[in-house]
Amino acid sequence: HRGAFLTRRLLATSAVAKGSFLQPLDTFPRRHLGPSDEEAQQMLQKIGLSSLKDLVKDTVPAGIVRAPLEAGNKEIGSEQAALAEIKAIASKNKVLRSFIGMGYYGNIVPPVILRNVLENPAWYTPYTPYQAEVSQGRMESLLNFQTMVVELTGLPYANASLLDESTAAAEAMTLCHAAAKNKKPLFFISNNVHPQTIDVVKTRAAPLGIEIVVGDHQTADLRKACGALLQYPATDGGIQDYTNFSAKAHELDCKVVMATDLLALTVLKTPGEMGADIVLGNSQRFGVPFGYGGPHAAFFAVIAPLRRLLPGRIIGVTRDRLGNRALRLALQTREQHIKREKATSNICTAQALLANTAAMYAIYHGPQGLTDIALRVNGAAQILATGLRQLGHAVADVSFFDTVRVDFPDHGAAEAVMQAAISEDINVRRLSPTAITISLDETVGRNDLAALFRAFNSCADPEFTPESLEAEITPGDVGSLRRTSSFMQQPVFNENHTETEMLRYIFHLASKDLGLQHAMISLGSCTMKLNATAEMIPITWPEFNQMHPFVPVDQAGGYTQLVQLLHHWLCDITGFVGCSLQPNSGASGEYAGLKAIQRYHQNNDQGHRNVCIIPVSAHGTNPASAAMLGLQVVVVPCDALGNIDIPALRAAAEKHKDHLASLMITYPSTHGVFELGIREMIDIIHENGGLVYMDGANMNAQVGLTSPGEMGADVCHLNLHKTFCIPHGGGGPGVGPICCNEKLLPFLPSHSIIPCGGDMGAVAGAPFGSAGILPISWMYIRMMGGDGLTKATQTAILNANYLAASLKDHYKILYKGNTGRVAHEFIIDLRGIKTSCGISETDIAKRLIDYGFHAPTMSFPVSGTLMVEPTESESKEELDRFVEAMVTIRAEITAIEEGRADKNNNVLKNAPHTMADVSADVWDHPYSREEAAYPVPALRLRKQWPTVARADDVYGDRNLFCTCDPIEVYMEQS
Amino acid sequence: HRGAFLTRRLLATSAVAKGSFLQPLDTFPRRHLGPSDEEAQQMLQKIGLSSLKDLVKDTVPAGIVRAPLEAGNKEIGSEQAALAEIKAIASKNKVLRSFIGMGYYGNIVPPVILRNVLENPAWYTPYTPYQAEVSQGRMESLLNFQTMVVELTGLPYANASLLDESTAAAEAMTLCHAAAKNKKPLFFISNNVHPQTIDVVKTRAAPLGIEIVVGDHQTADLRKACGALLQYPATDGGIQDYTNFSAKAHELDCKVVMATDLLALTVLKTPGEMGADIVLGNSQRFGVPFGYGGPHAAFFAVIAPLRRLLPGRIIGVTRDRLGNRALRLALQTREQHIKREKATSNICTAQALLANTAAMYAIYHGPQGLTDIALRVNGAAQILATGLRQLGHAVADVSFFDTVRVDFPDHGAAEAVMQAAISEDINVRRLSPTAITISLDETVGRNDLAALFRAFNSCADPEFTPESLEAEITPGDVGSLRRTSSFMQQPVFNENHTETEMLRYIFHLASKDLGLQHAMISLGSCTMKLNATAEMIPITWPEFNQMHPFVPVDQAGGYTQLVQLLHHWLCDITGFVGCSLQPNSGASGEYAGLKAIQRYHQNNDQGHRNVCIIPVSAHGTNPASAAMLGLQVVVVPCDALGNIDIPALRAAAEKHKDHLASLMITYPSTHGVFELGIREMIDIIHENGGLVYMDGANMNAQVGLTSPGEMGADVCHLNLHKTFCIPHGGGGPGVGPICCNEKLLPFLPSHSIIPCGGDMGAVAGAPFGSAGILPISWMYIRMMGGDGLTKATQTAILNANYLAASLKDHYKILYKGNTGRVAHEFIIDLRGIKTSCGISETDIAKRLIDYGFHAPTMSFPVSGTLMVEPTESESKEELDRFVEAMVTIRAEITAIEEGRADKNNNVLKNAPHTMADVSADVWDHPYSREEAAYPVPALRLRKQWPTVARADDVYGDRNLFCTCDPIEVYMEQS
Repeated sequence: HRGAFLTRRLLATSAVAKGSFLQPLDTFPRRHLGPSDEEAQQMLQKIGLSSLKDLVKDTVPAGIVRAPLEAGNKEIGSEQAALAEIKAIASKNKVLRSFIGMGYYGNIVPPVILRNVLENPAWYTPYTPYQAEVSQGRMESLLNFQTMVVELTGLPYANASLLDESTAAAEAMTLCHAAAKNKKPLFFISNNVHPQTIDVVKTRAAPLGIEIVVGDHQTADLRKACGALLQYPATDGGIQDYTNFSAKAHELDCKVVMATDLLALTVLKTPGEMGADIVLGNSQRFGVPFGYGGPHAAFFAVIAPLRRLLPGRIIGVTRDRLGNRALRLALQTREQHIKREKATSNICTAQALLANTAAMYAIYHGPQGLTDIALRVNGAAQILATGLRQLGHAVADVSFFDTVRVDFPDHGAAEAVMQAAISEDINVRRLSPTAITISLDETVGRNDLAALFRAFNSCADPEFTPESLEAEITPGDVGSLRRTSSFMQQPVFNENHTETEMLRYIFHLASKDLGLQHAMISLGSCTMKLNATAEMIPITWPEFNQMHPFVPVDQAGGYTQLVQLLHHWLCDITGFVGCSLQPNSGASGEYAGLKAIQRYHQNNDQGHRNVCIIPVSAHGTNPASAAMLGLQVVVVPCDALGNIDIPALRAAAEKHKDHLASLMITYPSTHGVFELGIREMIDIIHENGGLVYMDGANMNAQVGLTSPGEMGADVCHLNLHKTFCIPHGGGGPGVGPICCNEKLLPFLPSHSIIPCGGDMGAVAGAPFGSAGILPISWMYIRMMGGDGLTKATQTAILNANYLAASLKDHYKILYKGNTGRVAHEFIIDLRGIKTSCGISETDIAKRLIDYGFHAPTMSFPVSGTLMVEPTESESKEELDRFVEAMVTIRAEITAIEEGRADKNNNVLKNAPHTMADVSADVWDHPYSREEAAYPVPALRLRKQWPTVARADDVYGDRNLFCTCDPIEVYMEQS
Repeated sequence: HRGAFLTRRLLATSAVAKGSFLQPLDTFPRRHLGPSDEEAQQMLQKIGLSSLKDLVKDTVPAGIVRAPLEAGNKEIGSEQAALAEIKAIASKNKVLRSFIGMGYYGNIVPPVILRNVLENPAWYTPYTPYQAEVSQGRMESLLNFQTMVVELTGLPYANASLLDESTAAAEAMTLCHAAAKNKKPLFFISNNVHPQTIDVVKTRAAPLGIEIVVGDHQTADLRKACGALLQYPATDGGIQDYTNFSAKAHELDCKVVMATDLLALTVLKTPGEMGADIVLGNSQRFGVPFGYGGPHAAFFAVIAPLRRLLPGRIIGVTRDRLGNRALRLALQTREQHIKREKATSNICTAQALLANTAAMYAIYHGPQGLTDIALRVNGAAQILATGLRQLGHAVADVSFFDTVRVDFPDHGAAEAVMQAAISEDINVRRLSPTAITISLDETVGRNDLAALFRAFNSCADPEFTPESLEAEITPGDVGSLRRTSSFMQQPVFNENHTETEMLRYIFHLASKDLGLQHAMISLGSCTMKLNATAEMIPITWPEFNQMHPFVPVDQAGGYTQLVQLLHHWLCDITGFVGCSLQPNSGASGEYAGLKAIQRYHQNNDQGHRNVCIIPVSAHGTNPASAAMLGLQVVVVPCDALGNIDIPALRAAAEKHKDHLASLMITYPSTHGVFELGIREMIDIIHENGGLVYMDGANMNAQVGLTSPGEMGADVCHLNLHKTFCIPHGGGGPGVGPICCNEKLLPFLPSHSIIPCGGDMGAVAGAPFGSAGILPISWMYIRMMGGDGLTKATQTAILNANYLAASLKDHYKILYKGNTGRVAHEFIIDLRGIKTSCGISETDIAKRLIDYGFHAPTMSFPVSGTLMVEPTESESKEELDRFVEAMVTIRAEITAIEEGRADKNNNVLKNAPHTMADVSADVWDHPYSREEAAYPVPALRLRKQWPTVARADDVYGDRNLFCTCDPIEVYMEQS
């Protein structure tokens, strides 16, 4: 009969089960979910159940079950319909030329980089390079990024990027504070620093008791200052030599921090040469689109004595088991998950994808090409200044790089020019009521200059033209501030200037890495689900990515609508009423959520509440975030089943009830269990005057089944890059919005330039954080619909339980709920194996690489374990492949336990095996080459190989080396 | 001073050397050209010259030097400016919904396929899979395509695609003719076949003396017919059972050819079940955009007895040296370069990229998903028919799949509906003055149906809605014509239905192949230059790819302008006045060029002229094309220097002067030499009444330096996929326009639906052939400008001469011009080596794979040689890498010659070595694993590995197997 063709595929989620057969067939949930309905049935059978409903009933405590989701649902969605809908939203953004500056500049993304890095799953799907042996490609690229930063800034150590320029400045402040052993509680900021940076630094300073003084650096009193932040070029465009200032500051034991601009540094004297101790800034103008504020990669460089205080991720050079050069994350021992509340920062993510884009841009242009661009920009700015002077305007009489400042006699005159510029489709910056700046960039052309001249000339063409002024100026003429030192002479920056060479370099690096395009990445707590193409397509549309974050709000109608819809949907999902999209990482969301609680207490005259209870199983960023807010962390233990010890929690809450500020809790727990006592624990905190922050890391197990609001929490953060499909980008971007109830609504993050949120102050430079990638999550929610999202959660739980059930006879599964179920992830306990035969979780992780898999999360939250999170996007076939690998590895371990294999010279201790290794003329292992390389037959047909053998972490940390080899090394070798 | 920053990079071509420093810096020539100006200087030094000018003077005969090019030049270009310009052109296309049908249907390209196949250099840059061992990925995909065609059509053998449905029909005609041993010179065509197909078949039939009869198949007299072509479903939408017709035809020894539709076949009885001998059609609606007519992959399947007459490329299964399954091009011995004028077709290219796209679409949907789509389309068509009947229209009372026919009482009534539909932004087809058809497709939705109802209801909404009619119909109700047989049960079509699995499959296949993203592909005569991203971006814009080829011309303003500009530029480049973009391959261009000459002679009452002189060194397609036009091929020899033997040419021309039709000549010659006597040879032909066709295969050595027109030729074809940057797509698409002088202008290809060209008739189904990819060549020419194009030619010649000079002490370079220079390619003569130690050109080609290189062209035009064409896009570094490989291989050969290496068990005879090979437990070669795998050190850092050992051609041809293994094989294995 006529309905018969609505087959199982069409019905694969109930979201598309209703209605007529004229509904579109390009429905999304069946593409996003790994198991087909038939396979799900087989998997349910394996775990002894007959329906997803039963699984949920068996897993999620009855008391916290929520009402069905509305989010994303309007009518049955399809990929093409959703794309058309978001295109309509995008078209509400009015894309003008934006010469606003303030750290965000127009630029040209070279098409070869756009298509093959930004739009390539091989670059955007991998995770942070924890498994060094299958991450050499993007680490090589991040090393290029670090090298580029070192070369341009003139400081010797740089990290692999930070979230944005403003938070980087805040990190600089805490670094200065820490370097002064917390004894100099003042931080000076020049009044010529970008205002959004001042805002973020102030937000971060207050709870730490650091006093911020903003003023003229030339008259500043630095005696109590641990550091001083300057902008170079300054926010109004002026450049000056800070050498004397640095000398003076250093005499007073005050560190000098310079926020700067990489393009300018190709022609300007370096901060290093001027005595800066810390240099930071935004690398966005190196080929990364505006994106309405992000994501972009901030850079951060320090002098040698500060290198071990460098925040964030650092790629370092080391050697592998066979003595070959290998890259890996350096100084990992500084990480929050080790140092917890003693960490100086909660920063863990980088902006890897954008740092890689910026590095590739620098490689493609090379030192001379970058200099050409800088000279052209400066030449254009000089033409502009010359013309404006000829038109009688008061152009600031200072040296500048790309930004020309014009002062007006009154507000009205400035306003008239602002409006005239907009009528020419150009945004400039209103520096003050009577001043305007124009920041030119790589994209500027004659027509733009001519339009600007008209805007400053009562809409009439002046008598001169941009070309006619050329003879009067000399590009790069900045007097004694002209850079004389060479930079970026390493081969990588000088060999890849044709598109063919660039393309090959991009593909060569990608070929070394394991991403979601190869295999499941079952990193517990990381939710490496599908990043669907339909979700990714809109982010490179000009309507979204060509918007400067500070354009007049009436030009950003598309983003406004996108943000409103996401607020609405995320509130539905979390059971809350307020939302801020500003935090641009999960840790930043934690910070913002806790800060909202702090502001709430302060507002209720309870500002003394400073105790934050955190269970021992929490992510390390939790105590680090609390510490950043000056909170006292009280740790509560877990019981033998992995559940929080409720009596201990009650005791702690009651003990500290006069000072209790908050509980930070992850749900389901980081032990992979839906704890039954969640409501009770939340009630305990509320009864003792605290509020509850719920960590959103495990939200993938909640969506549609329960919610933080349903459980009674007050605020949570979400990881859009985990639960809501923003790709991990090889180590960032991340997006960490927070949602909250009415109590906290007045205290959400705000912004000094674009009105939004409550009264917290800013936690990021841009009002909506990494707005440019919000379309990804919008598309995901829209295409899944409420029913699809719920089914995703059910399937994630099913996949985890199926895996756990398939592995339980071979490995010890550490924690389960009272019905024997795990949540969306589970922990494999390997401590017994370590005892029996010396094989560690690391050995197993590295051996998994030989099987073509990325390892699960190692030793979190319990040392000596692996935590597995398959996500809903993996198929039964892939899960079975993983089971086969793990079971085969168990047999390899048994052979060691039983003495059939050598205790040290075995397939696990020597893992991973590279191609060079197994094809070497000499083979001195007691096992065969084929046992090393092809332990299961399917690997002969399909396997992503590691390109280095096991990386030596200790060697690399002892010999910290974080840049590309200088040219001399290559010359010696050749 | 102020001009100083216009550095060498900016000046890298003279196209950007003039003007102000405000010119954009994202200039293209320096990205396209491999060597920097400095490197070019070093390379010139190597060959003993000091400038590119001198090189040209030394290489190109003085008598044929042309005036500077104008093509592409307006102002100094930049990538972004050119993109903006072509966006403006694109926006002149009005994109309506097109339900015109006729073999072209709207569809949804699944985003995962769009981004990762169509927009991925790993899929679009490789060449035809001549080197099987580094082409297993796309051959696996083409095998999927063949399997899909076999399964859907019900015939057992299919090829890997043809150019389009119309030319496929023409191939079917010649196959029928050949199968009847040329004894049945009549071919019947149903009047219900698409008109453009009838047109192309007629064009091809005439010169072969095949009579075409178009009529009603039910009353056709088939006694003299070698074959009969039917359309199923028919062009007016009707479907009927052709079983009885087939039986009748077979009794008369007449082959039955059915042009069909793959989507329809998921629900309709197969042509195979109805007795068809040959089945063909367009696979476009399987996920390939309209593209204003192409490129799309035609399919072609035959019954078993005809399998060795199957035209075009066939992927076959064989085994490799180690006994493992391997794929390769089957039955290569049928190729034109072997059979030359005895070939039955000049077809050599396929539409690999589009066939792969269609196969991936079928994989992603699977048999059930495709059926769902077909049922939905049919259901929508039934709703349409039901509604139109209720509105009082005369809907044809026949079974149909997707196309509804409505007859009108008069022309005016039909015209009113046509216009009303356009006012609803919908194109339908005017079948006749008083009939309209509407062909629905995958993209149809309720709104489209509602709009159509309005268009057929005097612009008013009827009382019913599409949904309200649903209850009255049953999707798939086509009575006895409903398909009952299952199809596509092979695992590949049933395992990759989630985006994650699909993505992994796409990347897995790509990982097996060597493309331009890995290394130089120096295939002589193939011009594997850069396919730049900026060139590729516009082709997936909806403004270009959502245009049906037969929309009213006033909707295609963008394409009209694009075509006009390309005509203008290509005429400038060739020195001609007329151009046709219709031929969609080089061979098709040859055919069209020769045909124009034939029509010219006929028009001058010289129709008896039927002799075509072709030098022995010509591409095999030349004599094959001549044969297709019924011409008598007269071969003239070359002298010892590789030049055409002019006295012999003169003798032949004079001997045949009364019947001389044409000379086909390639310039520079296929021997890689600018022959000095070119003008003399052309004069000889003209003096004897013939015209000269110049083959454009080597145009990459002419552009800007000389031209066919300059030399006096009358017509030439161009390979836009060689000289003008359209990527080779892994074996197609190709685009082969022709340009001609005034004499031939009246005889260019025409089209029966869209007016264009002269009076030749059509040589392709669409008026402008593969119009959808013309933006690639447009962008290339625009971004290079005349000076850039000229410099590209100079650089191509430089690269070839540099390579030849670097290799000449190690290998014999076969032919050089009188000054000792080669043109843009050269031949390495290996016959001496074969004699000395038994090592063949194949052994060297396969050994080059071990060095990470794709082999140059083997044994063309001289057996026992390699022909090397590096193109202008390769850098000095890459050329040096190739030289290192070739020199090292020469040393390996010397070791065999000197008895230091075994004559049979050596690195060359056993090449290529796979990973499995060199890591196997058993190694029984007298050389080491490392010598096999890493003969030069750089390979340890960067190497694309072959995935199979040397493929066994003979075994595969003897055991022809051209589909995926059936499910049973997998079941047996498991």
